[in-house]
Amino acid sequence: MLGRFDHHREARTGIPEAILAEGKDPAAVADIFANYLERDEQLIATRVTDAIVDALGELMPELHYFPDARIVATQMPEPAESRHTVMVISAGALDRRVAEETAVTCQLLRNPVDRVFDVGVAGLTRFATELDRFDKAGIIIVCAGMDGALPSVVGGLAVQPVIAVPTSVGYGASFGGVAPLLTMLNSCSPGTAVMNIDNGFGAAVLATKMNQLACRTA
Amino acid sequence: MLGRFDHHREARTGIPEAILAEGKDPAAVADIFANYLERDEQLIATRVTDAIVDALGELMPELHYFPDARIVATQMPEPAESRHTVMVISAGALDRRVAEETAVTCQLLRNPVDRVFDVGVAGLTRFATELDRFDKAGIIIVCAGMDGALPSVVGGLAVQPVIAVPTSVGYGASFGGVAPLLTMLNSCSPGTAVMNIDNGFGAAVLATKMNQLACRTA
Amino acid sequence: MLGRFDHHREARTGIPEAILAEGKDPAAVADIFANYLERDEQLIATRVTDAIVDALGELMPELHYFPDARIVATQMPEPAESRHTVMVISAGALDRRVAEETAVTCQLLRNPVDRVFDVGVAGLTRFATELDRFDKAGIIIVCAGMDGALPSVVGGLAVQPVIAVPTSVGYGASFGGVAPLLTMLNSCSPGTAVMNIDNGFGAAVLATKMNQLACRTA
Amino acid sequence: MLGRFDHHREARTGIPEAILAEGKDPAAVADIFANYLERDEQLIATRVTDAIVDALGELMPELHYFPDARIVATQMPEPAESRHTVMVISAGALDRRVAEETAVTCQLLRNPVDRVFDVGVAGLTRFATELDRFDKAGIIIVCAGMDGALPSVVGGLAVQPVIAVPTSVGYGASFGGVAPLLTMLNSCSPGTAVMNIDNGFGAAVLATKMNQLACRTA
Amino acid sequence: MLGRFDHHREARTGIPEAILAEGKDPAAVADIFANYLERDEQLIATRVTDAIVDALGELMPELHYFPDARIVATQMPEPAESRHTVMVISAGALDRRVAEETAVTCQLLRNPVDRVFDVGVAGLTRFATELDRFDKAGIIIVCAGMDGALPSVVGGLAVQPVIAVPTSVGYGASFGGVAPLLTMLNSCSPGTAVMNIDNGFGAAVLATKMNQLACRTA
Amino acid sequence: MLGRFDHHREARTGIPEAILAEGKDPAAVADIFANYLERDEQLIATRVTDAIVDALGELMPELHYFPDARIVATQMPEPAESRHTVMVISAGALDRRVAEETAVTCQLLRNPVDRVFDVGVAGLTRFATELDRFDKAGIIIVCAGMDGALPSVVGGLAVQPVIAVPTSVGYGASFGGVAPLLTMLNSCSPGTAVMNIDNGFGAAVLATKMNQLACRTA
Amino acid sequence: MLGRFDHHREARTGIPEAILAEGKDPAAVADIFANYLERDEQLIATRVTDAIVDALGELMPELHYFPDARIVATQMPEPAESRHTVMVISAGALDRRVAEETAVTCQLLRNPVDRVFDVGVAGLTRFATELDRFDKAGIIIVCAGMDGALPSVVGGLAVQPVIAVPTSVGYGASFGGVAPLLTMLNSCSPGTAVMNIDNGFGAAVLATKMNQLACRTA
Amino acid sequence: MLGRFDHHREARTGIPEAILAEGKDPAAVADIFANYLERDEQLIATRVTDAIVDALGELMPELHYFPDARIVATQMPEPAESRHTVMVISAGALDRRVAEETAVTCQLLRNPVDRVFDVGVAGLTRFATELDRFDKAGIIIVCAGMDGALPSVVGGLAVQPVIAVPTSVGYGASFGGVAPLLTMLNSCSPGTAVMNIDNGFGAAVLATKMNQLACRTA
Ligand SMILES: Nc1ncnc2c1ncn2[C@@H]1O[C@H](COP(=O)(O)O)[C@@H](O)[C@H]1O
Ligand SMILES: Nc1ncnc2c1ncn2[C@@H]1O[C@H](COP(=O)(O)O)[C@@H](O)[C@H]1O
Ligand SMILES: Nc1ncnc2c1ncn2[C@@H]1O[C@H](COP(=O)(O)O)[C@@H](O)[C@H]1O
Ligand SMILES: Nc1ncnc2c1ncn2[C@@H]1O[C@H](COP(=O)(O)O)[C@@H](O)[C@H]1O
Ligand SMILES: [Mg+2]
Ligand SMILES: [Mg+2]
Ligand SMILES: [Mg+2]
Ligand SMILES: [Mg+2]
Ligand SMILES: [Mg+2]
Ligand SMILES: [Mg+2]
Ligand SMILES: [Mg+2]
Ligand SMILES: [Mg+2]
Repeated sequence: MLGRFDHHREARTGIPEAILAEGKDPAAVADIFANYLERDEQLIATRVTDAIVDALGELMPELHYFPDARIVATQMPEPAESRHTVMVISAGALDRRVAEETAVTCQLLRNPVDRVFDVGVAGLTRFATELDRFDKAGIIIVCAGMDGALPSVVGGLAVQPVIAVPTSVGYGASFGGVAPLLTMLNSCSPGTAVMNIDNGFGAAVLATKMNQLACRTA
Repeated sequence: MLGRFDHHREARTGIPEAILAEGKDPAAVADIFANYLERDEQLIATRVTDAIVDALGELMPELHYFPDARIVATQMPEPAESRHTVMVISAGALDRRVAEETAVTCQLLRNPVDRVFDVGVAGLTRFATELDRFDKAGIIIVCAGMDGALPSVVGGLAVQPVIAVPTSVGYGASFGGVAPLLTMLNSCSPGTAVMNIDNGFGAAVLATKMNQLACRTA
Repeated sequence: MLGRFDHHREARTGIPEAILAEGKDPAAVADIFANYLERDEQLIATRVTDAIVDALGELMPELHYFPDARIVATQMPEPAESRHTVMVISAGALDRRVAEETAVTCQLLRNPVDRVFDVGVAGLTRFATELDRFDKAGIIIVCAGMDGALPSVVGGLAVQPVIAVPTSVGYGASFGGVAPLLTMLNSCSPGTAVMNIDNGFGAAVLATKMNQLACRTA
Repeated sequence: MLGRFDHHREARTGIPEAILAEGKDPAAVADIFANYLERDEQLIATRVTDAIVDALGELMPELHYFPDARIVATQMPEPAESRHTVMVISAGALDRRVAEETAVTCQLLRNPVDRVFDVGVAGLTRFATELDRFDKAGIIIVCAGMDGALPSVVGGLAVQPVIAVPTSVGYGASFGGVAPLLTMLNSCSPGTAVMNIDNGFGAAVLATKMNQLACRTA
Repeated sequence: MLGRFDHHREARTGIPEAILAEGKDPAAVADIFANYLERDEQLIATRVTDAIVDALGELMPELHYFPDARIVATQMPEPAESRHTVMVISAGALDRRVAEETAVTCQLLRNPVDRVFDVGVAGLTRFATELDRFDKAGIIIVCAGMDGALPSVVGGLAVQPVIAVPTSVGYGASFGGVAPLLTMLNSCSPGTAVMNIDNGFGAAVLATKMNQLACRTA
Repeated sequence: MLGRFDHHREARTGIPEAILAEGKDPAAVADIFANYLERDEQLIATRVTDAIVDALGELMPELHYFPDARIVATQMPEPAESRHTVMVISAGALDRRVAEETAVTCQLLRNPVDRVFDVGVAGLTRFATELDRFDKAGIIIVCAGMDGALPSVVGGLAVQPVIAVPTSVGYGASFGGVAPLLTMLNSCSPGTAVMNIDNGFGAAVLATKMNQLACRTA
Repeated sequence: MLGRFDHHREARTGIPEAILAEGKDPAAVADIFANYLERDEQLIATRVTDAIVDALGELMPELHYFPDARIVATQMPEPAESRHTVMVISAGALDRRVAEETAVTCQLLRNPVDRVFDVGVAGLTRFATELDRFDKAGIIIVCAGMDGALPSVVGGLAVQPVIAVPTSVGYGASFGGVAPLLTMLNSCSPGTAVMNIDNGFGAAVLATKMNQLACRTA
Repeated sequence: MLGRFDHHREARTGIPEAILAEGKDPAAVADIFANYLERDEQLIATRVTDAIVDALGELMPELHYFPDARIVATQMPEPAESRHTVMVISAGALDRRVAEETAVTCQLLRNPVDRVFDVGVAGLTRFATELDRFDKAGIIIVCAGMDGALPSVVGGLAVQPVIAVPTSVGYGASFGGVAPLLTMLNSCSPGTAVMNIDNGFGAAVLATKMNQLACRTA
């Protein structure tokens, strides 16, 4: 069995339960997906491994599989109305994996998404050419490993709320993402929301909650 | 001299520059306040020490001083229209200092604020009696030291975005706030926005940016 | 050879010696089991690997093997009389492995056990529905990874002694279980007994010692 | 104000609320004590500073003050009936401060207490002469700094449950108590209950819960 | 006595010995200064405390004292010929102390210096207005605390060698300068030379060695 | 796709972009190399894995492959005129891997190189026999793991700028290179430039920038 | 090539050079052994892997191979005259690997050795039965993982110098040997000599130097 | 009271008990000294504070007080016969405090001592001039802070056993002595005995045990 499900979570928190697939029994994950497909309900699994993708086998054609994001879902909804665009920025080439988990989760949670990838601090000129897309976004998520400096730069320019996701990309004294995590917690751009290392899923949930707030009347 | 000021920051980021007063020369801080009073502009100083309060001397009657929050400002604005209420929750008795920095900054940045203090996880019943106020809030900020467990409990119940501020309250293996910081980064309530230790100011800035977003059209 | 055995440990400490099988030579472990079976004595091995299970080969039918707990024993005793029930709680789906090690060891050390699994803090409602079983327990063990917040919540409600086992479940800033370990050491529910990361065996030993104390006259 | 009080805690958890006085406003602490004296209820304050003792001023004659333990209480109860003796052991001369906090709290929570101080591992012979008192105890609490090795030695000999309290006594690579904390978490005597650094209060609460369990029928 | 002096160090390494005054006996420091003044030789003392400044007493008029840099020297030389200008950049207002130690040491080691202070990443526009001075520099030293992000931005734009000095400015998860230190070690601008926390002196020595190299024939 | 390329980096910073191949898709790396070969432009890839070398397959004869350095490049330029020799020193036998990455990158960036390998501190006599080559160098890079002590010894003797590269060579309390990293950051030879663990590439970039500076007029 | 050899090390330091084989090229290691066999000189290799043992192939019959210690040597000398016996103690079953590296190196460096294995602190009675052998030893080396408490107990009883080797045996909060390392550094038995984690080789070298000193005239 | 004394320690371990005075009640320390003077027995107190020196008041003329070492003793014995000289080396000027604690304790434990101070790695030439004294020593103790590199250099040259004492001298990333501690644990000069940070006392005890061994017959 895969665990006790929290079917009221969406009602309570506005966000459907998702499963973190890594470390779980592939056959059990497949059973759950069969069950959700039958009931025609949304199920999101993140961090799916190759073994899990294999176990999903013949269900696959009915499912939505995002290999770069390592995500599988039963349904791919349209963006909800009057939601702000979430801009997902990645710094280095290897940060894309986390950025894709972020962007796909944002879409599955019904946010319009704009991806601006590979615009790290070592070549800010690449960033400069995207400033117009920047203005159109309502919420900005920045995924960065190594020095984790990009959210500080973005946050110093942005009227939008900025969510920072440190990634485990790097080596040596990056300590598996601790270096960019500390950079972001100490950002001199005040108000940066920091996530756990590689937690693109959490960033997407927070962005969705901000977007839902924007649709409620104060 | 106190530093080079970034007068365009509010235009660029929606948030006025504030100074972190601790460690700065009291006389220089007083000069800046005199200057801002004269120009009739808003200036916010956080972490003011007793020495700084003394140095402000005869300017004090014209200033807004919040001793529990250790904040001084030249102006105390009304809440902006159509802003959601920011609920500021503190867990333990000693977490109030950070919670007050948070709440006062929220007010100075023009958000309506509701304080719910001293409702830690060791006595969740105290929390249970406040659930109606909880429903009326748009954004929730939780300040907690020691185990830092309260944001996970709140986040498991909340439709609102939750911002978690670890405090340095605790001893021994709390390591000056590292224990609650890690708890919050690893919260099993997904989407929790985490701040630096004791960074109530940053939490208030993030809440303000969320509230400003809610007032923009997507 | 597997080591020098401490045959007087049970007489001295009330708890039989057990071997932590991981890292040991499978053939040597099998020899020891053959020896104990022949002498008709209890032997408990925890953290048995697949290689060890294979090496046990034809002895297996005579042994008690608990695959989810990764435990093998020569004997499965009945609960001792007048022992209190030990409730074993797990927070997330992946914490079950440690919770099973805990629960099976409790049973092998002759305690009645009640398992309440997958009731993490992110959905406290799942926990709320089990409160009656909670009242019937004498000792509570909580296994939790990620934020490790569940023991604080349980401890704030419990008259029973609470034993907290941090698990290595999580990623990024959970640092292989350091995050929940610190949470538990700093629990604002006073008196929480903390174990090493993933140490379900130790938690069961402590619960057994508490139960044995309850059967002695002061 | 000193905080919102959790008056139902004793009913819920069997342990009265106590305040950690350090860091709190001396005048506010004194007000609370006046209030509890008037209502003739128990109030325990730990880690009282000299400033707090001064502020208690004329209330002092009515209060119970334990200077070595840094504890003040309104009442000093008799040990409860049929409770097991709690033996409180300290390793080095400087560990006595934590051991006294532990012993006095045990007494205030109505446990009979036996103190065996200054019997560290560097001179186990001092320990050997106390083995008869050892046999008469129901629960053993060991307070040790520096290498924190004493609980392992005690736990290897004891049928009783053993609670280990690391202290911040030491210098250099003891890192304010981290060294003995790790020693205790990794104790090769299984089932050692570990507390936060210097947390004698928590150890006493756990011992009390064990003693209360021993008085309940399974 | 203040120590055994290494009078050949300048001959051997090109850099005169300097003393780190903090922690040393003020009277002994004063004696050494008297001795060097008499012999008409250069002596540099960094991290001078108020007590040391007092002890220097009547020697002071003959000495060069830089209070913001906490440096005292017997001689203030002219810049050496054909040296490149060293630009010293500081990020936040409080980073000036380290930046001044850096700049004054550069001058004492005979380099022309250009100070660009308080141009942190949170307001890159302040930095943008100084780009012409930037082009005229031969070597760039960046002093930054908190997130330590500025050297990455500078390094992504600079043809010059960049030396990064993390400062202990910050709080909470900056851990006394560890956060900016890690940021700089992991800078995605390759080739950044990193110094110990607050080690402005070392940065100046390295810049001087670069400048000396530029004056030698390959 | 392998990422967005920063084609102006060489113009801006004097150093061509290079790719850190580890972790990247071998086929994508091969495509990029094919593209650069066709355009007859320099491309440097460091940390190439066996899988990447395999994927380069039939391109290999046209490429420059340095197996000890784990580097592949499209072009092998001559040393630039009037550059100083970069001496690359390694301490232990296993530090050679990093030293080769350093030395080959220096060559690819057009510096003359002199390798002095395996002259660690435990046998300084091996070092003593190379002092004449030492005098001829303009810049010194020292790669050392374990205690990381060699750069301090070299720095105490050198007029040249010294760049220290800690390596992950060692075990136990070397913590994957943290021990030599800290040694180097705390070097009592002032002005030592420190790199991230195993970052031979960065050391070569810094040496190149120093050499370019030496060729510019102040 | 395997490295530059330090042939004068034995003359200088009294200890022959040894190679740490792990991580080195098996073929190169085999070449060196062939060379030393031919020259009839001692060569010691520690941490030999299976691949290296395979590569030694047909040389093996001429070599001395100690599989439990993972050591290969060309010669097995007799103990030197008038050397004191080195007692090598191990605590847990898994600590034997390090204890064997220690004991075999002691023998190769010509010390008489007495092994007392598996006498950990959790069952000190096992230790008590060996006290007579204890008295006959001149130097004591204790290898212990997990809590690392055994050297403190031994050191409190011993007139002999005690050398403590922390091992990486343990899990969770033992952090790969950091827990016993800290225990040993903070041992309340003063004068304990501490080695790096798993460094049995180093302990044997130190014991040998002590033994050599005992054979010199003061 | 100051603690329970271990009067048999000298008989058992060859080393008299000593008290670590810091943190203890000055009046109680004075009482103990009066008692030992009267009984005409040796008592050693290390880390005596100014308050303790004051409390010793009129006893002082009868005591041996070593202010640089912060040690007080009742007796100053002659070196024991046939002991080897212990050479105590310090690296930097500020390491003298620990070196003096080491040297004075060595003398109080009856070893002949030779002090060689202030000969750090940054100026190895200062060290080179002392090599003849070096040859006459039997045991070498090296006290070093900052990079802690000196014991590796000494150990690479010495036939004698080398004891390394890391000091808390340094700043920033020396982390109160952690940097030199790690350097020494990872020393590439095998067999270095490592002590806790600033533990000169322990180094002296170990040297004494080595010297005592040299006086016993194997
Ligand atoms: N990629 C992810 N990163 C972080 N949290 C996740 C991720 N995917 C799912 N989750 C959350 O983590 C929990 C998974 O726990 P479990 O019940 O053990 O599957 C769910 O409640 C999700 O909300
Ligand atoms: N209490 C506070 N906590 C965190 N950041 C703050 C606080 N007060 C001000 N800040 C921010 O920190 C920066 C202070 O830097 P400085 O220019 O050195 O005063 C400003 O840009 C503020 O936005
Ligand atoms: N098992 C071991 N543990 C610690 N040091 C060792 C060990 N084996 C060899 N060594 C030492 O480490 C050095 C090996 O470094 P290398 O010359 O690079 O192979 C030699 O000088 C040996 O003295
Ligand atoms: N400076 C010192 N550093 C380390 N250990 C010491 C020092 N001075 C005394 N000790 C030891 O530490 C113990 C002191 O503990 P205590 O009984 O609390 O005074 C004694 O057993 C001494 O052997
Ligand atoms: Mg790139
Ligand atoms: Mg309270
Ligand atoms: Mg779940
Ligand atoms: Mg004592
Ligand atoms: Mg500013
Ligand atoms: Mg070698
Ligand atoms: Mg065993
Ligand atoms: Mg000096």
